Amino acid sequence: MKTYRKGYVAENQLVHMLYERGWAVMRAPRSGKISIPSPDIVAIKSGRVLIIEVKSRVAGFQIRKEQMNELAEYIERSGGEGYIALKLPYKGWKFIRFEDVLANGGNVGKKFLDEKSLDLEEVVSN
Amino acid sequence: MKTYRKGYVAENQLVHMLYERGWAVMRAPRSGKISIPSPDIVAIKSGRVLIIEVKSRVAGFQIRKEQMNELAEYIERSGGEGYIALKLPYKGWKFIRFEDVLANGGNVGKKFLDEKSLDLEEVVSN
Repeated sequence: MKTYRKGYVAENQLVHMLYERGWAVMRAPRSGKISIPSPDIVAIKSGRVLIIEVKSRVAGFQIRKEQMNELAEYIERSGGEGYIALKLPYKGWKFIRFEDVLANGGNVGKKFLDEKSLDLEEVVSN
Repeated sequence: MKTYRKGYVAENQLVHMLYERGWAVMRAPRSGKISIPSPDIVAIKSGRVLIIEVKSRVAGFQIRKEQMNELAEYIERSGGEGYIALKLPYKGWKFIRFEDVLANGGNVGKKFLDEKSLDLEEVVSN
């Protein structure tokens, strides 16, 4: 399975998990981009807004500055909560608050992830 | 220009108009549907959520019951405001509150549109 395809399947799974928990969900189009930046997933429930960027890789990596800026603007406009989501082998989905990743210079290392990451239930029941 | 293509271009225009007015916007994917219903456009600004279904046709028409139900559920889950959006020749974009369309049995007639429709500025400055 190619990384692209793998990422798509993972994203789809997360969308369904949120849907099953009562969220209104939308995922960004893969193609036909409209020159306006958007995150991978937006989920809304009773006025609570989650802005989610999915990274289909293990820690550590760095999110490039341009993407961090685009996410920051989207979060600012919406007034929602930003998260970076990772699907880890054996551990499942982990979420890190966008502010934490921003404060860490866009870096998502293994130790950082261990310290800061949340499970899905922690995110949705916030 | 085919209807499908025409609808796509119109939707794109609306997405950009909302973006220029400070909204965080996302439009639904055209393809690769994920078996979860979603509207054409979601726009969010400082916690205010617009759920928009774009109809690229003139009045009158009827929105089928299944789609009305799907929209109602999405609006309910999100806690947002639902709108049916039309781009009319010469008149530009018009918006009708989802509740009004629902109360009218999904029918969007010419007279109904004249009575109930809002301009973009009325919607975004609500």
